[in-house]
Amino acid sequence: MKIAIAQINPIIGDIKNNAEMIKKQAELAIKEKTKLLLTPELSLCGYPPKDLLLNQSFITAMAEELQRLAETIPPEIYILIGTVTFNFSAHQEGKKPLYNSVALIHNGKIQETFNKRLLPTYDVFEEDRYFSAGDKVNYFNLEGVKIGITICEDLWNDEQFWGKKSYKINPLQDLVNHGVDLIINLSASPYIVGKQKLREEMLTYLVNKYKKPIIYVNQVGGNDDLIFDGYSCAFNKKGNIINRCKPYKSELIYLNFEQKNQDLLPSLVNNLIISEEEEIYQALVLGVKDYANKCGFNKAILGLSGGIDSALVATIALDALGKDNVFGVLMPSPYSSKHSVIDGEKLVENLGIKSEKIPIQQVMNSFDLLLNPLFKNTEFGIAEENLQSRIRGTLLMAIANKFGYLLLSTGNKSEMAVGYCTLYGDMNGGLAVIADVPKTKVFKLCKWINRNKEIIPNNILIKPPSAELKPNQKDEDSLPPYEILDDILERYINKHQSLREIKNAGHDLEIIKKVIKLVERAEFKRKQAPPGLKITDRAFGTGWKMPIARRI
Amino acid sequence: MKIAIAQINPIIGDIKNNAEMIKKQAELAIKEKTKLLLTPELSLCGYPPKDLLLNQSFITAMAEELQRLAETIPPEIYILIGTVTFNFSAHQEGKKPLYNSVALIHNGKIQETFNKRLLPTYDVFEEDRYFSAGDKVNYFNLEGVKIGITICEDLWNDEQFWGKKSYKINPLQDLVNHGVDLIINLSASPYIVGKQKLREEMLTYLVNKYKKPIIYVNQVGGNDDLIFDGYSCAFNKKGNIINRCKPYKSELIYLNFEQKNQDLLPSLVNNLIISEEEEIYQALVLGVKDYANKCGFNKAILGLSGGIDSALVATIALDALGKDNVFGVLMPSPYSSKHSVIDGEKLVENLGIKSEKIPIQQVMNSFDLLLNPLFKNTEFGIAEENLQSRIRGTLLMAIANKFGYLLLSTGNKSEMAVGYCTLYGDMNGGLAVIADVPKTKVFKLCKWINRNKEIIPNNILIKPPSAELKPNQKDEDSLPPYEILDDILERYINKHQSLREIKNAGHDLEIIKKVIKLVERAEFKRKQAPPGLKITDRAFGTGWKMPIARRI
Repeated sequence: MKIAIAQINPIIGDIKNNAEMIKKQAELAIKEKTKLLLTPELSLCGYPPKDLLLNQSFITAMAEELQRLAETIPPEIYILIGTVTFNFSAHQEGKKPLYNSVALIHNGKIQETFNKRLLPTYDVFEEDRYFSAGDKVNYFNLEGVKIGITICEDLWNDEQFWGKKSYKINPLQDLVNHGVDLIINLSASPYIVGKQKLREEMLTYLVNKYKKPIIYVNQVGGNDDLIFDGYSCAFNKKGNIINRCKPYKSELIYLNFEQKNQDLLPSLVNNLIISEEEEIYQALVLGVKDYANKCGFNKAILGLSGGIDSALVATIALDALGKDNVFGVLMPSPYSSKHSVIDGEKLVENLGIKSEKIPIQQVMNSFDLLLNPLFKNTEFGIAEENLQSRIRGTLLMAIANKFGYLLLSTGNKSEMAVGYCTLYGDMNGGLAVIADVPKTKVFKLCKWINRNKEIIPNNILIKPPSAELKPNQKDEDSLPPYEILDDILERYINKHQSLREIKNAGHDLEIIKKVIKLVERAEFKRKQAPPGLKITDRAFGTGWKMPIARRI
Repeated sequence: MKIAIAQINPIIGDIKNNAEMIKKQAELAIKEKTKLLLTPELSLCGYPPKDLLLNQSFITAMAEELQRLAETIPPEIYILIGTVTFNFSAHQEGKKPLYNSVALIHNGKIQETFNKRLLPTYDVFEEDRYFSAGDKVNYFNLEGVKIGITICEDLWNDEQFWGKKSYKINPLQDLVNHGVDLIINLSASPYIVGKQKLREEMLTYLVNKYKKPIIYVNQVGGNDDLIFDGYSCAFNKKGNIINRCKPYKSELIYLNFEQKNQDLLPSLVNNLIISEEEEIYQALVLGVKDYANKCGFNKAILGLSGGIDSALVATIALDALGKDNVFGVLMPSPYSSKHSVIDGEKLVENLGIKSEKIPIQQVMNSFDLLLNPLFKNTEFGIAEENLQSRIRGTLLMAIANKFGYLLLSTGNKSEMAVGYCTLYGDMNGGLAVIADVPKTKVFKLCKWINRNKEIIPNNILIKPPSAELKPNQKDEDSLPPYEILDDILERYINKHQSLREIKNAGHDLEIIKKVIKLVERAEFKRKQAPPGLKITDRAFGTGWKMPIARRI
């Protein structure tokens, strides 16, 4: 029995076009004599649909589209489609009004629907906000094969593998108890560094434990801050991977299930990306590409300071959108060092992108003239530093608005954490490309980019980081060295360590206190930041919910 | 038996000072021979603590502080304190690691803890993210009185009153089945228009249904976008309200429970605010006051355009912070009408606040000069309009940064909905004071402010709204009249109505389509907006979770 995985990239809310996309995959699969086509979790509306789910007409539209789709698909194929359905007894049962479901369509009809049983509500996931948990064991029979259905989280509750239970029930165990021959998992599992390695470890563990083949189907594509990396894959009951989709790309792949042995047959398997840098880089490229495309932009603009952050973002943008579609703007001030301009120009030359140089001194002077009466007898300080950044941010937005460019902001995670960035200045943008990449990792990514030849001018990589908002400024005048800062931040933010735990790791108490205070104080800036592409288990995005007016 | 309600205003995360605040209330209550002191939900850490809860050291700090507090409180009083506790069997049970609890402290010890049973996860509430639901019926005995404890949502699931069940169980029914004599509800219930009326209707219904007295204790104070209005109150078993705290203020009030009749004795009752305008206005004043204070500001700055939105915000700021602490800045451009400047100056005079006039033409010219080479042969458009707004936003931030002012943004909900506002321009600010107030309500509030004398110059109220970013611009050139716009927005946003339903309400199909498109397209702006004080059931704040890259 031939089974196909449609690793598709739906647009959130775009029900009609997503249905069309599924239909095209079905047509291709039918040509290959596929019996069963698999699509990701919520493939009809894209994941995550968020509060679009609160509009009843959105759910109804999905039901209608699903019906239409069922009616137009030729009768030779079965398709599993992720969709949202009503829980009509929600008001009697005291539950949420919807289910996160999978519909089995065949022969002009919706044959059956299956409801997700484990609803993740942590980090970026908020499924308890919308959904009732399904209370049935989900399986169906196809040509004598008993096929168990799990939806994403349903597979992620093995007490032995995780050393804890996150939910009361284990849907996979239930399926095995019901004697299924094959497990299917339809997911929308967002990328973080090393996620696929973890997924495959878990899948291998589950296959070895239950001796059942598993097919894991993931969504691919960038949706705001989330990047879905794809990497759909399948394991036979011996515990071997027998197929794997490419990461970061839509793909349609085929598997063969042999009824005699009740197992998936081996085939050629795409490689995993080995290098962490490459994995992150490709993820960010996809994030930029999809955010731009799905928001209707084909060109991006960014400020080039001559520093490493904007150099990295420019390179990512180029790979996402093509060199003719990236516009870099150099905006030197009197505080900009000569090498910054030279480095920026060299970068433009190396990348072959369009650029413009717009010195900002005149505008600075005109602001100073206006503010002088108010600011007389005050020292040059944060206000004046921020002003330069805001002039640049305003120029970039003016050009972006005029020509319909997407402005990319270039701040890294270390800056976003400690607030070493200007709100309404360098934070401006539709998308914060490297907002979840710590500065030390920015360096690593750039070195990786330069692995074969100098793409990012070497001087950008070796000079000490500086905001250049006052004479001879260096980041390390205000912040601890980035190796120390990033380790403290990783412990504090990602690992939720206490001051004492961080101290025990060998850091200086006063430095830790200072860093934590900076993180706390910068909350108001993060609140107003653009969506930032998530690559770690704790990003300043959807999954970061912090009070601003607080004291700790 | 004397019972006291401490309607307190904790600062989120400020465990030590919140404990101190509770201690002071206890000392006052002891002087009045109070037996039982009640504090709001999570009174020890303030509500909502959000992701502070993910740091284990935060929970431990709370446990330690609670223990210290128990040890320092004199033995004659019992206190119920809202706190967070660990669910130590979470990993075995497959549940979340914390409980939203109430601790009963007495005689140097934590006598007992009670866990919240119904965990709201909708709108601004995200309790399933953090908490296990309590599975015990919560009551204790005090001087022969069996006292049932409910925590906020625990009381909000009466199937008859709501016409539906939102949760499987009804903790109140459980308590009645266990024969309690008195029901206590410790809450952190955020304000929306008319909320207290609804609460009291529900409480009256429940008292009449179960014939048990109920004491409802609410938190007071502004926490980011949420305003907790206080209005703690108590009902005897006849269904009469017997006491009510003032809204928008910390207060300590006393109730007498007569053991013989097992009922609360009547006393003087503060009035409800009757006028909707006054209710909203006072809520917004509290929201501004607390956001400023809790973030460490005592002065605010705002731009005064001569329009009605900034006039309203200036008036609110004055009432929140005092006239010496509000700084208004007039920033006329060549497109500003003469009357705008006159109206703005008249407002400053009426309010008696400080102000400065900073004409922006020179800065506009300096930007034009820089951008001319790029913009030649293009028409004056959105880019140029936004530029003016961003120059103003940059000036305001420069002054705010220089002198440590809180910048208040002045956009109303109608603008925020359709994107009739400039990101990094007039949207700049630490707090968006009227971001949940539709334009038509802005007018009503201003008329209410002027009910006794002209505080907001009358010309501001009668002239047609205009952004004045190009010659002779009027809002109605780009938008439907506000009466129509606000009704469509209310139906679409607050009531989740479909296009067809809105059309059936009598609106023009093309206008509805245009409005919906504008709302969808402005999502990226709202993503980067400051926190906006919530006054309706559907605000663009914590409870608004929308994908940006989407198509519907």
